[in-house]
Amino acid sequence: MPNPLDKIKTQVKKLSAYTLNAPECRVKINQNENPYDMPEEIKTQVLARLANRPWSRYPTFVPVDLLVTMARFSSWRADGILAGNGSNELIQALLTVTVGPGTKVLISEPTFTLYRLLIEILGGEVISLPLTSDLQYDTDLIKHTVIEKAIDLVIICSPNNPTGGVIKDKDLIELLTDFSGLVILDEAYHEFSEHTVVPLLKQFSNLIVLRTFSKAMAMAGLRVGYLLSHPDLAREIAKAKLPYNLNFFSLTAAIVTMEHFDLLAPIINKLIAERERLFTALSQIPGLQPIPSQANFILTKTSISPSELMAKLQAKDILARDVSRYPMLNNYVRFSVGTEKENNELIETLQEIFTNHPIVGQNLPLN
Amino acid sequence: MPNPLDKIKTQVKKLSAYTLNAPECRVKINQNENPYDMPEEIKTQVLARLANRPWSRYPTFVPVDLLVTMARFSSWRADGILAGNGSNELIQALLTVTVGPGTKVLISEPTFTLYRLLIEILGGEVISLPLTSDLQYDTDLIKHTVIEKAIDLVIICSPNNPTGGVIKDKDLIELLTDFSGLVILDEAYHEFSEHTVVPLLKQFSNLIVLRTFSKAMAMAGLRVGYLLSHPDLAREIAKAKLPYNLNFFSLTAAIVTMEHFDLLAPIINKLIAERERLFTALSQIPGLQPIPSQANFILTKTSISPSELMAKLQAKDILARDVSRYPMLNNYVRFSVGTEKENNELIETLQEIFTNHPIVGQNLPLN
Repeated sequence: MPNPLDKIKTQVKKLSAYTLNAPECRVKINQNENPYDMPEEIKTQVLARLANRPWSRYPTFVPVDLLVTMARFSSWRADGILAGNGSNELIQALLTVTVGPGTKVLISEPTFTLYRLLIEILGGEVISLPLTSDLQYDTDLIKHTVIEKAIDLVIICSPNNPTGGVIKDKDLIELLTDFSGLVILDEAYHEFSEHTVVPLLKQFSNLIVLRTFSKAMAMAGLRVGYLLSHPDLAREIAKAKLPYNLNFFSLTAAIVTMEHFDLLAPIINKLIAERERLFTALSQIPGLQPIPSQANFILTKTSISPSELMAKLQAKDILARDVSRYPMLNNYVRFSVGTEKENNELIETLQEIFTNHPIVGQNLPLN
Repeated sequence: MPNPLDKIKTQVKKLSAYTLNAPECRVKINQNENPYDMPEEIKTQVLARLANRPWSRYPTFVPVDLLVTMARFSSWRADGILAGNGSNELIQALLTVTVGPGTKVLISEPTFTLYRLLIEILGGEVISLPLTSDLQYDTDLIKHTVIEKAIDLVIICSPNNPTGGVIKDKDLIELLTDFSGLVILDEAYHEFSEHTVVPLLKQFSNLIVLRTFSKAMAMAGLRVGYLLSHPDLAREIAKAKLPYNLNFFSLTAAIVTMEHFDLLAPIINKLIAERERLFTALSQIPGLQPIPSQANFILTKTSISPSELMAKLQAKDILARDVSRYPMLNNYVRFSVGTEKENNELIETLQEIFTNHPIVGQNLPLN
């Protein structure tokens, strides 16, 4: 009998699956979640609305209430917004309608790994550029390459995961002006940079912006994201989005959260302040070299091998993220910004680890 | 400036979007939902669990608790199960890893429209066979065509939406035996047929079964589906499934619902009995010719044009489904089985409509 696996595309069989090895720890700073959770007042309102709605009925075909609330919240037009089951789903829909064999997609690596995975599954060609040596976007190289290699799509994550750097508006505008393909700007972490590129949508019909409720908005467990673009593009991308993709639980939670953003804003400001405090503290630990970040995490070079450091932290019930398998990041780990208490605990634990480590202060392979 | 729409694939631009025009009506029998809603006891337990879990944290990477509960519930192995945001998402993942330009997928139409849409978006070739004149699967034609046309995948919806017919185990087994490609059996409505093909998974590694919580399980608003297959296939299909695709609200609701299936089973039995009662009643209305159904809906031929009948029903606040744009179904509408009260109201309204209709009993274009 023939093997049913013969019917799976060769490029899929070659792929390793996206996985995450995440043991349970008391201090969880591995996924850039909001450590303060959703304010109780929002939770109560959401649960009350869920209790009052029949569960056996589909969500509406187009979630108008949600889109209108998102439009008001983001200052963009509702007919240029698509809501998804996490922004991942919208990246997937977007790439599904644009990428096939022969399509060239430019990304700068290291970045969020899902882009490459989805492009490869769809049979497209990934053109990967490195970040600069200080782990920032090499915008001159990007601008040169899109023309030289006749790129179709560029994906930029800004602030970038896992490095925390951003693309400047000036560079983005130059790219959008000179390049005739599509530019996808994933601003999953934009709240922590106190900046958004959404105002550029009015001027540039080749810009597509992605946002998520999984980070600053404290809804990682609920999976809501949205895409903002020219309505003509949104209409085409919607064709690859599944009907009823967003369940009414998550949809309701997103609406209530936007309506009560005043309750979340102080938490986000607190996290930004904590990021700066954590950065300063990490800088002062010999053996660690944090990279300035505009997001809610700090990429940090370590003189102890990442796997060893991870093990030492896990022994103290702290789960950070080993990013050493990303390109350029051999000697790096990533710390999400936790609560004030969690950050204190991280700092103290790292001080202890590096103070007791035999090679501290000596021969740091920091560059 | 070049048009950004140039970067959208031609086959996508040619597609019309999947849409649903659904005005609000008091009696909603257009989407095959469970009209009795989720039992209150299950709702209460789910909401209590949601209140006690941080919303800002991602679901676990692999939803082990859910998969183990699904395995027990379906009598299949947990490593051969994938859970999705509705079975739609799993159909999409499955087709993404198997379908590209040159892939031949056989479907029998009329059937669930999403199959064709997704195959076309992925650039595959749809080989469409008609149902028999009495709207059943033409299994001899299917078995012949898969060999003659070197088909790669066959998708069979059983009970079929929107016709309600099933494929017999004997025919399915012959197909699985003779055909070396993959057979996808979508059993979204299987509870209403009191039958499942899951036991065949042990014997046939080229069979993939899809299930949903949106129909009998009373969770259309929550979007949960699952796929059952040989673990090797499940592993490959998982590569096209997005990480964290299922939010923990829906995931929790699915677990609690399976744990308390004893509360749902009597509702499903009631709906089966109501289907039979509705079928008999529709058969007795001159001008209507219902098709026997193993699902929770009844496809019905009508002597009044479907659009006119829909308008008359909507005037009485009843929303059924006009399926006249499906192949072979020019003169058909579909009624979901409602509550006892809703079915009575439908029957009475139809009796009234057809009794008062000038052509009743005359020249019915029923064959």
